[in-house]
Amino acid sequence: MVLNYPKHFLKTTKYNIVLIGAGNVATQLGLALKEAKHTIVQVYSKRKSSADSLAKLLNCESTNSSEKIIKTADIYIIAVNDDAITDVVKQLQLSNQTVVHTSGSVEMNILKPSSKNYGVFYPLQTFSKNKKAKFKTIPICLEANNTNTLKALQSLGKSISNNVQIINSEQRKFIHLAAVFACNFTNHFYSIASDILESKKLSLDILKPLIEETANKIKTNSPSTIQTGPAIRGDTKTMDNHLKLLSNTEYKKLYKLMSMSIIQF
Amino acid sequence: MVLNYPKHFLKTTKYNIVLIGAGNVATQLGLALKEAKHTIVQVYSKRKSSADSLAKLLNCESTNSSEKIIKTADIYIIAVNDDAITDVVKQLQLSNQTVVHTSGSVEMNILKPSSKNYGVFYPLQTFSKNKKAKFKTIPICLEANNTNTLKALQSLGKSISNNVQIINSEQRKFIHLAAVFACNFTNHFYSIASDILESKKLSLDILKPLIEETANKIKTNSPSTIQTGPAIRGDTKTMDNHLKLLSNTEYKKLYKLMSMSIIQF
Repeated sequence: MVLNYPKHFLKTTKYNIVLIGAGNVATQLGLALKEAKHTIVQVYSKRKSSADSLAKLLNCESTNSSEKIIKTADIYIIAVNDDAITDVVKQLQLSNQTVVHTSGSVEMNILKPSSKNYGVFYPLQTFSKNKKAKFKTIPICLEANNTNTLKALQSLGKSISNNVQIINSEQRKFIHLAAVFACNFTNHFYSIASDILESKKLSLDILKPLIEETANKIKTNSPSTIQTGPAIRGDTKTMDNHLKLLSNTEYKKLYKLMSMSIIQF
Repeated sequence: MVLNYPKHFLKTTKYNIVLIGAGNVATQLGLALKEAKHTIVQVYSKRKSSADSLAKLLNCESTNSSEKIIKTADIYIIAVNDDAITDVVKQLQLSNQTVVHTSGSVEMNILKPSSKNYGVFYPLQTFSKNKKAKFKTIPICLEANNTNTLKALQSLGKSISNNVQIINSEQRKFIHLAAVFACNFTNHFYSIASDILESKKLSLDILKPLIEETANKIKTNSPSTIQTGPAIRGDTKTMDNHLKLLSNTEYKKLYKLMSMSIIQF
């Protein structure tokens, strides 16, 4: 395979970057890359106000017209909703610039029509627009369609994180699935706990030290070895009492299914 | 109601304590109380070796014979399995010493046969024998059958924690139930995530920054307002893909039920 990389591209570690998207990921990634002395040359977003406000934060150009996307940057980072990636790809007609998406669950090859050089730059974290992310510890999962692109992405990744990993599309799918259990579903249990407490005029505050310690414990222990609670003890009396306390049918179902799963694990 | 408290009991803030039980809670509580300059006078456990090793740690007497439990201490802390509390109560025939249990889900009144003065001293945390607990931030949920006992327990609680709360048996049941969702069930999702990753030769390590941040976020946000993931986005394509990736029938069921619950919340 012949690669048409301009030589300077492989030598430099500071890139000119176009950010496509202006949501939580684009915002936090943009801020981190700027701090690492890369140049964000432009922000594109379908919604003009979003493009403008992120561009202002990053001190760069903005556009909401796909035709006006600058064609001469080094790297194009697509940080939009999964469903919108294909649309963006159609609009990006580049030759050998590097194009990446930041999604956990979308195949790398979806980017093929956009450029000769493409890959995935997936920061494995839950981002908020208004809370600055600490990228140094965030795993950056990389994949690329050729070695030089991978090297460029490694250089980019290492400029913001100490935890850069090469992860193929198949592995990444499973990481994303596992993250749904460990993050999204876990957060929903925090919501259910909060709902149960509010029904008795209590606040989730009382559980916060416990929630923190539960997350802390797995830093040094395998979670299955430190499982606690009535299910793992086989304490059917307490489980029966809990089911009686739950008036919400969905919560009852979840309680039963989770307890069975803990017992059978 | 006439109380027969000896006067010195209400004035002093340093108590002589008998610990009944030698598991995780008894160990961590014993260490914290000793550090707060209370005197653990004795450890009782049915298993002699357990009683001996905790007593050694706390530099006090030990016994595995209920008849040899010292009758002249100020406070008796029952930190045994929920099912074993009734047995202990039968063996403790005290007059006006304070007797407490440390359980989240057991009624206070179960202690009535043991003394005129009884209550609950429930430290809301997940404890390990070998990891020293930081009691200062741990909520201590108190309940007592009379005002003077409550005052004594408040004094005891405040000597080890800045987060002492009066919680009745009804509230405590719901706190314990909410804790099962926020701690036990959450930890089980960490186990499932780990299992999914291991099936692809990946380690849970890659999710640890995400797990930490998920628990951190709710310190300053209501969890339902920061729910992320395919379910809350209504991203049925990703959810369908995830279900196809899951070969384990139980995980599939949990994935569906959790996603439905997030959508309907």
